Amino acid sequence: MNDQSQQFASDNYSGICPEAWAAMEQANQGHQRAYGDDQWTARAADEFRRLFETDCEVFFAFNGTAANSLALSSLCQSYHSVICSETAHVETDECGAPEFFSNGSKLLTARSENGKLTPEAIREVALKRQDIHYPKPRVVTLTQATEVGSVYRPEELQAISATCKELGLNLHMDGARFANACATLGCSPAELTWKSGVDVLCFGGTKNGMAVGEAILFFKHELAVDFDYRCKQAGQLASKMRFLSAPWVGLLENDAWLKHARHANHCATLLSQLVADIPGVELMFPVEANGVFLQMSEPALEALRGKGWRFYTFIGSGGARFMCSWDTEEARVRELAADIRQVMS
Amino acid sequence: MNDQSQQFASDNYSGICPEAWAAMEQANQGHQRAYGDDQWTARAADEFRRLFETDCEVFFAFNGTAANSLALSSLCQSYHSVICSETAHVETDECGAPEFFSNGSKLLTARSENGKLTPEAIREVALKRQDIHYPKPRVVTLTQATEVGSVYRPEELQAISATCKELGLNLHMDGARFANACATLGCSPAELTWKSGVDVLCFGGTKNGMAVGEAILFFKHELAVDFDYRCKQAGQLASKMRFLSAPWVGLLENDAWLKHARHANHCATLLSQLVADIPGVELMFPVEANGVFLQMSEPALEALRGKGWRFYTFIGSGGARFMCSWDTEEARVRELAADIRQVMS
Amino acid sequence: MNDQSQQFASDNYSGICPEAWAAMEQANQGHQRAYGDDQWTARAADEFRRLFETDCEVFFAFNGTAANSLALSSLCQSYHSVICSETAHVETDECGAPEFFSNGSKLLTARSENGKLTPEAIREVALKRQDIHYPKPRVVTLTQATEVGSVYRPEELQAISATCKELGLNLHMDGARFANACATLGCSPAELTWKSGVDVLCFGGTKNGMAVGEAILFFKHELAVDFDYRCKQAGQLASKMRFLSAPWVGLLENDAWLKHARHANHCATLLSQLVADIPGVELMFPVEANGVFLQMSEPALEALRGKGWRFYTFIGSGGARFMCSWDTEEARVRELAADIRQVMS
Amino acid sequence: MNDQSQQFASDNYSGICPEAWAAMEQANQGHQRAYGDDQWTARAADEFRRLFETDCEVFFAFNGTAANSLALSSLCQSYHSVICSETAHVETDECGAPEFFSNGSKLLTARSENGKLTPEAIREVALKRQDIHYPKPRVVTLTQATEVGSVYRPEELQAISATCKELGLNLHMDGARFANACATLGCSPAELTWKSGVDVLCFGGTKNGMAVGEAILFFKHELAVDFDYRCKQAGQLASKMRFLSAPWVGLLENDAWLKHARHANHCATLLSQLVADIPGVELMFPVEANGVFLQMSEPALEALRGKGWRFYTFIGSGGARFMCSWDTEEARVRELAADIRQVMS
Repeated sequence: MNDQSQQFASDNYSGICPEAWAAMEQANQGHQRAYGDDQWTARAADEFRRLFETDCEVFFAFNGTAANSLALSSLCQSYHSVICSETAHVETDECGAPEFFSNGSKLLTARSENGKLTPEAIREVALKRQDIHYPKPRVVTLTQATEVGSVYRPEELQAISATCKELGLNLHMDGARFANACATLGCSPAELTWKSGVDVLCFGGTKNGMAVGEAILFFKHELAVDFDYRCKQAGQLASKMRFLSAPWVGLLENDAWLKHARHANHCATLLSQLVADIPGVELMFPVEANGVFLQMSEPALEALRGKGWRFYTFIGSGGARFMCSWDTEEARVRELAADIRQVMS
Repeated sequence: MNDQSQQFASDNYSGICPEAWAAMEQANQGHQRAYGDDQWTARAADEFRRLFETDCEVFFAFNGTAANSLALSSLCQSYHSVICSETAHVETDECGAPEFFSNGSKLLTARSENGKLTPEAIREVALKRQDIHYPKPRVVTLTQATEVGSVYRPEELQAISATCKELGLNLHMDGARFANACATLGCSPAELTWKSGVDVLCFGGTKNGMAVGEAILFFKHELAVDFDYRCKQAGQLASKMRFLSAPWVGLLENDAWLKHARHANHCATLLSQLVADIPGVELMFPVEANGVFLQMSEPALEALRGKGWRFYTFIGSGGARFMCSWDTEEARVRELAADIRQVMS
Repeated sequence: MNDQSQQFASDNYSGICPEAWAAMEQANQGHQRAYGDDQWTARAADEFRRLFETDCEVFFAFNGTAANSLALSSLCQSYHSVICSETAHVETDECGAPEFFSNGSKLLTARSENGKLTPEAIREVALKRQDIHYPKPRVVTLTQATEVGSVYRPEELQAISATCKELGLNLHMDGARFANACATLGCSPAELTWKSGVDVLCFGGTKNGMAVGEAILFFKHELAVDFDYRCKQAGQLASKMRFLSAPWVGLLENDAWLKHARHANHCATLLSQLVADIPGVELMFPVEANGVFLQMSEPALEALRGKGWRFYTFIGSGGARFMCSWDTEEARVRELAADIRQVMS
Repeated sequence: MNDQSQQFASDNYSGICPEAWAAMEQANQGHQRAYGDDQWTARAADEFRRLFETDCEVFFAFNGTAANSLALSSLCQSYHSVICSETAHVETDECGAPEFFSNGSKLLTARSENGKLTPEAIREVALKRQDIHYPKPRVVTLTQATEVGSVYRPEELQAISATCKELGLNLHMDGARFANACATLGCSPAELTWKSGVDVLCFGGTKNGMAVGEAILFFKHELAVDFDYRCKQAGQLASKMRFLSAPWVGLLENDAWLKHARHANHCATLLSQLVADIPGVELMFPVEANGVFLQMSEPALEALRGKGWRFYTFIGSGGARFMCSWDTEEARVRELAADIRQVMS
């Protein structure tokens, strides 16, 4: 089960990266104050503020489901609604967590193009109903990079945030793979968030090389009022917080976060290039982050599975997702590509 | 801040024990299936079943607040109530988490003796109101070892569970320091739980030497139906679950959990013995686990703080809590005792 | 505003019917025990048991949104999901009430034909996802008569309930216009509910001639355990309950409920017949209850509005809904039909 | 069961007063727009604004439990807490409704004197804990008149609201018997609410002579934002709203509300005077509204029950509550007093 053929199943099948590990090891010295009142947590928060070039409010949660749900529930009330893409993780893979944390906020799905929301799609959903018999739209959430491996450009984000402002909507970014988007676009974290009008970002650590953990960044102080209480009540305040925050120091201090994201992206691009000319294999979405979505025949997929490869096929009949991560080996990418070529011939 | 004078502030000021660390290191090899579908999680669950000598259902959550709240919310509905001691952690230190997870279940506090509930106290609260204008009692939760360092004997647990059965109440055990209770009583985990009528146990890992993590054990299969969905929705399902479960393997395999608990208990007993004859220092509760609660004058406490010692004083005026943990050093215990003697003279 | 041109806007624009009024007047004598412990409430519950030919559990709530939400939340947990038609009132017009009462249960919309669910559509949604990352389907809710004026035949209900049984789903019926369905089909209430496998019915009183009030009928005792507490906690237990239950006695005792439903249905049928031959006017759905949905040109609708008529147009461009109620006057139906003919010529 | 001996059991055992009835009858004419968009609802809201001499926001809910819970949940988040008297209805008789509507806000009980909170008691509770492990106090709720029949003077309210302002707490008034307090004190509704610093009032209609219904008045517009959505989602928006609002017009227009409250108060005072000299009968609380609380021997109470009288005894051993209402007959008061005299002799 621990074999290498699982390397493309999911980026959270990967382990802990050396930088995160080293920081945890260093943090494991003697006694430290609990619940985030320690020096590692302070350092990690400062690293985020340095990286994002702004005095944002920083919180740490255990996983992405919780981070997204906490953030969304702080941006709306139970009778409000959240606009998201129909492929958004919050809609398809969090088992109703946003609805649970918010005590009933409804998710309204909008059309997306290559997994991305547009101002028009948001406007359409936001203006569809304006009566009290339907939850009032209050938040837009988008995923950067998206669940199908595409990324939002700064100008796309700005257009969306302008629409949000006009319609009185807060803007949340699910950044489970935010690092991959930064790596692809060569943009600064600031450019892709508050400078483009994002109110709250959930910055994913797990897929970037941590054991566990997500950071929640508020770019407007007033939105973060009492958010620490919210985390505590929802079971998301770690007692030995340093082990949740120290890995961030490891990842952020020397830009390891960016290095890992670049590597994962590189492997995905390589894979897509290696299969580009294979007849019968089609790219379903542009490869802009660390995922490659291929359309192939069912028998071909079956043959690939027969060779031991593991991958997800939730995108519809004949669609397969191959995810690369911080520790994906190029040799394995080439091996996979060769096997795809073989099963297609 | 990382100085040793914090060694008695809280048992969650301590770090990760060697056994948990080694297991995490071992688990950090290659790719593994996510969300608990890995071999480490299976092994950890099996270790629990071996240790508890029964085919219980095992789940893993990030922290004690979440574990308790998930367990309680699975044992009652929002219009039910939970009976607990007025010093219970769920009542005093979880920021309303049980109420949040259960969507409104009320906690009803019962009188306790040395932090322990009694059948009489439970009966009194359970029978006080029987009309629909008041939440219907449905669960009793007790803490083993208690928040004031005492432990329930098997016969006490059996008397309580008999009362619960009679009144139609489920019985939950908050075992944040369950290991310490086992160590003190020399009882098997089975004796202190299902053999004594406990329905669900939250077994604490954090205070026992882990970085993060709590195990939830259901001794009745029917109570655990769909509990995995509950965990997922509440943001308590780790994607890289192996890093939450492997440390448990490290702790359980060679009874490290018990060794650490014994050490902590030993330090607490030692401290209490060393200060037993100091005039003006009074033991507030029997020392039966890893905590020592001393009644001293406020100036004495202030003087102790002046010497750099850190401790909590939430128990009321003049009361100080000194907690020992798996890595407390005997030399520091003696040093603390000497300082107490000095400030009192 | 109180003019008669509003007679087709909604069946809840109508007033209180004479039978309900008389019962309220009768109930308004002296002092009576509160919270449902009075004789009127007992009588109303007995009337329901007589009418449904079974020993069902009967509860009273203030309105349909609450009745549906209470019923659904008693049939599932927050991490479960509810399958409904995409036109279902619970999905489109209750402002997220089911999600709020259930603390987050997700509504999954299924394809419908003429507003009706089918076993196939239910199966498709129920089996789409079987993993813990998506809420587990636990309930099917259908509306009888539907929001577009169609009704489920007993054999359709039986086929659906067989599918529910097979898939482990509870079956709830939103009967805001249950009376109209009974009137149309000439079936007994029992045939259209428990004899066809329905677990819980919300029987609407408001649209049937009451001021306020809905009855919730459980056909399986075990599903109703502690439901009285649920109602109380959710703010749905009337103190002067007799004024909520007495009108039911008035409606049920001499089958006034059926008479009123028949009249409303008759008016709808009449309207549809009177406009059947008008060119450019098309029936959008079969007229099987008290609603008539007509497709007409936007200018025609505008002209109709100009003549003072009020109606809803939420069904899509050019679609207009005309609702008849217990007190709709035939003369007005003919007047409306004549005006439609005129604006279309 | 409909006998007159129940006249002192509860003020919600009474029926509908003539003024409310007449208004309902008048409102029951033809068709009217639903969901509060009708003229009766507009009139009722205007009447409230006139009566309270301010442009407050007015909403209508079905009962007091819902009104209080909706109001409280709009004043705090789930991780906040609500300070109330230990005898407050929200704490003792709403089955956890405030916790349910707010998704987990904890009620913190404060000491009360004659059922009344004091600035000191509020301060004590509010300042007891200031850490994130305990819900943050955000609202104070007080009951006017209180559950034990006492009333807050304007200067008491002002002192409390000053404390609230200082501590950052919103101030809510449960006015289930607000009319009685106004009648007793001879103060205007404005004086007893916003002029004394109250933010939100739940004005009770049921005990004042209505069939059902409570009004929620916000004296600060910003606190009422989207409150209509909150009501709708929580199942508290009546479709035929006019039948909930018209009775208010009846009650408010000619000060019937005050007349009824005065009568009830008068009966209570009369009862207390008639029994004042009976040895062995002691007044438990000052009679300042429509309730009389008498301390008598258990055998005496039993004898009184033997004579057919009904009353509540929830106040503790030997305590009996006798409530007067808008329709209590003086003759019955005298009869009751005579019977008390007899059983005591």
